[in-house]
Amino acid sequence: MAYTGTPVLLDSLLYRPAHSLIDQSLHSRMGVETTNGDGFGIGWYTPDGGTPAVIRDTGPAWNNRNLREISAHIRSHLFFAHIRASTGSAIQQTNCHPFRHGRWLWMHNGAIADFHRLRRDLCMVIDPSLFADIEGSTDSEVMFFLALTFGLDQDPPTAVARMAGHVESLGRRHGVEFPLQMTVAVSDGERLWAFRYSSERRSRSLYHSAEVETLRALHPDIKFLQGLSEDTRLVVSEPLSGLPGAWTEFPESSYGEVGAGSAFVRSFEPMPADGELPRSPVP
Amino acid sequence: MAYTGTPVLLDSLLYRPAHSLIDQSLHSRMGVETTNGDGFGIGWYTPDGGTPAVIRDTGPAWNNRNLREISAHIRSHLFFAHIRASTGSAIQQTNCHPFRHGRWLWMHNGAIADFHRLRRDLCMVIDPSLFADIEGSTDSEVMFFLALTFGLDQDPPTAVARMAGHVESLGRRHGVEFPLQMTVAVSDGERLWAFRYSSERRSRSLYHSAEVETLRALHPDIKFLQGLSEDTRLVVSEPLSGLPGAWTEFPESSYGEVGAGSAFVRSFEPMPADGELPRSPVP
Amino acid sequence: MAYTGTPVLLDSLLYRPAHSLIDQSLHSRMGVETTNGDGFGIGWYTPDGGTPAVIRDTGPAWNNRNLREISAHIRSHLFFAHIRASTGSAIQQTNCHPFRHGRWLWMHNGAIADFHRLRRDLCMVIDPSLFADIEGSTDSEVMFFLALTFGLDQDPPTAVARMAGHVESLGRRHGVEFPLQMTVAVSDGERLWAFRYSSERRSRSLYHSAEVETLRALHPDIKFLQGLSEDTRLVVSEPLSGLPGAWTEFPESSYGEVGAGSAFVRSFEPMPADGELPRSPVP
Amino acid sequence: MAYTGTPVLLDSLLYRPAHSLIDQSLHSRMGVETTNGDGFGIGWYTPDGGTPAVIRDTGPAWNNRNLREISAHIRSHLFFAHIRASTGSAIQQTNCHPFRHGRWLWMHNGAIADFHRLRRDLCMVIDPSLFADIEGSTDSEVMFFLALTFGLDQDPPTAVARMAGHVESLGRRHGVEFPLQMTVAVSDGERLWAFRYSSERRSRSLYHSAEVETLRALHPDIKFLQGLSEDTRLVVSEPLSGLPGAWTEFPESSYGEVGAGSAFVRSFEPMPADGELPRSPVP
Repeated sequence: MAYTGTPVLLDSLLYRPAHSLIDQSLHSRMGVETTNGDGFGIGWYTPDGGTPAVIRDTGPAWNNRNLREISAHIRSHLFFAHIRASTGSAIQQTNCHPFRHGRWLWMHNGAIADFHRLRRDLCMVIDPSLFADIEGSTDSEVMFFLALTFGLDQDPPTAVARMAGHVESLGRRHGVEFPLQMTVAVSDGERLWAFRYSSERRSRSLYHSAEVETLRALHPDIKFLQGLSEDTRLVVSEPLSGLPGAWTEFPESSYGEVGAGSAFVRSFEPMPADGELPRSPVP
Repeated sequence: MAYTGTPVLLDSLLYRPAHSLIDQSLHSRMGVETTNGDGFGIGWYTPDGGTPAVIRDTGPAWNNRNLREISAHIRSHLFFAHIRASTGSAIQQTNCHPFRHGRWLWMHNGAIADFHRLRRDLCMVIDPSLFADIEGSTDSEVMFFLALTFGLDQDPPTAVARMAGHVESLGRRHGVEFPLQMTVAVSDGERLWAFRYSSERRSRSLYHSAEVETLRALHPDIKFLQGLSEDTRLVVSEPLSGLPGAWTEFPESSYGEVGAGSAFVRSFEPMPADGELPRSPVP
Repeated sequence: MAYTGTPVLLDSLLYRPAHSLIDQSLHSRMGVETTNGDGFGIGWYTPDGGTPAVIRDTGPAWNNRNLREISAHIRSHLFFAHIRASTGSAIQQTNCHPFRHGRWLWMHNGAIADFHRLRRDLCMVIDPSLFADIEGSTDSEVMFFLALTFGLDQDPPTAVARMAGHVESLGRRHGVEFPLQMTVAVSDGERLWAFRYSSERRSRSLYHSAEVETLRALHPDIKFLQGLSEDTRLVVSEPLSGLPGAWTEFPESSYGEVGAGSAFVRSFEPMPADGELPRSPVP
Repeated sequence: MAYTGTPVLLDSLLYRPAHSLIDQSLHSRMGVETTNGDGFGIGWYTPDGGTPAVIRDTGPAWNNRNLREISAHIRSHLFFAHIRASTGSAIQQTNCHPFRHGRWLWMHNGAIADFHRLRRDLCMVIDPSLFADIEGSTDSEVMFFLALTFGLDQDPPTAVARMAGHVESLGRRHGVEFPLQMTVAVSDGERLWAFRYSSERRSRSLYHSAEVETLRALHPDIKFLQGLSEDTRLVVSEPLSGLPGAWTEFPESSYGEVGAGSAFVRSFEPMPADGELPRSPVP
């Protein structure tokens, strides 16, 4: 889950909705794994614009009392929350999302197929000045460092497209048919980008919330919506509620940008590491 | 799960069966909760007859590497294994099963209804010389200490019946309609007792394995069965496999005893704390 | 450590001073144990006056990354921080300080001598409506619940004196020569009380900071002091710095009160559970 | 600590000696850090000759109940035990010692100076088929994988000398004056090698126990010594007891080999990655 908009207490989204993220940690409905109990993390930006804060732990989110306490006392205009279902890599804080580098937060659902075999070649491409900051053993962290290498600081959609392109071309050289499956959220504290893509074109689910104005018109009785600014948006792997009209699915192979005045969804294509990203809007 | 019989490596039962206990920690089919990720424990006896060993931890069993290592190196003729789904009490080692006192191991699925309200009165009944050894905050541990108080050392079925009787009479005095829901396994290192009971007479599931001879006749191709002695028995909340003829459900309101030459199932009735247990066999 | 005064980020006191609490968790100079690595906790009040927040964990404070993140983002006018050195009781969140009940925070260094033997009798005295809220197994938590029982809500110094009196009289009935050793900090979110006492009259160390005005006159070059209000006070087991004139030791058998306009130190004497507290100032 | 010889229960060495490893985890006398509370691990071989077992955890050893239980039930003729004081890298299981690869166990005290800067170049040298098995972020694990790359399977002393030579030459190319500080223990389940070396020639302490025969003659009253075979040896960073004549320090720049009939100490010199190790005995 990634949120941007009117500053809210984290627990108003983590715990209160009927099918909240914490509830999903026990009973996911759409995920590949039905239980996400292998760690969790939250990351949030503060108005002063500095490095975001990150809290991560290795146990399940659903029974973590500290998470509940923190969520009830941290207010943020832009935050990430993640629950992890490991596909084999170690249960450790440094493998939990979100990952942070400088002012960047990154989180990911999905996998690089056959990562164990591709890991070294992918790591070799990471900028040498960044390599030593890798602390964990996940594909997700390597994807983040590749995106940083490919210019996340300058142009996030292009950097992610180059990362994806690189993973795909390397994977295919190793004989992997569908190297990449990903939904990614990334932010620099001002804008938030979300990506939905898979080599197989059967990507994991990803949704964003409708415009606040629309939501209010549909559900004039919901008090929480009254206090939100026009630019408030949520990006989630699974809808937090069954509210009609509240959630829009990202199309297959697309990405979206919200915050700092912009809000759009465009098509997404991996690109060669030295290529450029097409800027055509999603039809 | 409780095992008694031919000494085996713990992992041969914890990890290898198709629907093993570790697998159940992620995807329980019959339990009230579908995820048992709030801690786990194993306890085992050694041939020298001393105090059993107990390992407990607060995270999920399914991702615990140490449990896998230990299970592959500990061989025992009588062991317990438990996965926990907390109903609210703290996630801590001292709330994980099995509980140990002297040579006794105890584990429990179920709950004392309205335990928060009954807790003090139940604790008051515990033998003063035992009270200070309580380390956690669960109903399960209090049930164990009540059974110890009511003579577990002398006559386990009677002690458990008195405990159940006491919980029910106290609960009813407090206006609780169905105070007790329990499946319990308890051992002194020689024999193993299992209980299935609930005030409502809608008890959680409990099974024991069929006689080894029967199993061998039904499944002559299964190698693991060849090495087991006649008196080998497993007690489980959920069958570890779909093997036809392998599992017998405990009747509602019953208990069983295995080990040290005996093997029977009888009816179970809670009794007044100063009463005696009827010894009639299950019809 | 307990702080009240101008709202500050927690890390400005937890991490920045030369001999900060986190540093003390590795190398205590005055404590009985030289390492405090058996858990830690922080509790803080917010201006809205509600229930305080509490974060506790079982590992050492010195290597906890989450504590560092939280401390850098939580600002409070009244907070507690504690590092634990267990004297044998279980390493679990519910045994970590501060303890919370309603609007109260409580933390303690010291011990009830022979607690294992006295535990049941002490628990029997706890108000039945409070008993079931006990979650851990420490003497510190029992002391807190006894103080709640003896009227912490009405008159904290008297409630603590009655608690101490009760522990001493019960201990002596059991033949314990020096039943109590304690330094305690307790708050309701408005005022902060600190106690230093031991049956043997050889109490563990306890200090409070000098008046801010005095500190500024002594150390005009220290910038941090410029921003603090007149009523800012710190209570610590060990001075956070070697700053001359900065720390005043609590006399043997005394207690102090700060916040909400008051600031004084008086003598402390345990009292019979039904007695009254003498109000004479420390000579 | 590394042990080889007569099979013993782990706790007879981990917990029982006066200055045992667990005691050292709280109060080290000779180490650089006085507290080793950032994790621990044990690894042991079984008579069947397979992969060794490894248990690792991130908390302090001194308060870990599971370690105590396991140690009382695991008997081994060759085992490692380690307590960790992190110099900054993450507190996670995969950073705890001993490290395991196939039949090899490896543990290390010390550091590669400026490891953050050298990390990538060192990782590039690791055999590509081994690289993806790296799970943590420590210099110790990289040293292990370098030794595996340089032929640990064929000739352990040469592989370690090449590893050390490589670290030194790379470090010096990066302007690091004293790149390496290490005491290492490594085993394949049959023999045990211990190394003491530092670029500065001021290496951390390392001791081995005297011959059992000598120990018995010196201390005929110590019962534990009676049961040990002639080839029993302990390698430790700090003596476990003040027993006169029991401990011999490894000379500066030396290594020793015990087990499978051999027992000697020789001089140790780092060597170029393609060089050969001098075999001259320590004078």
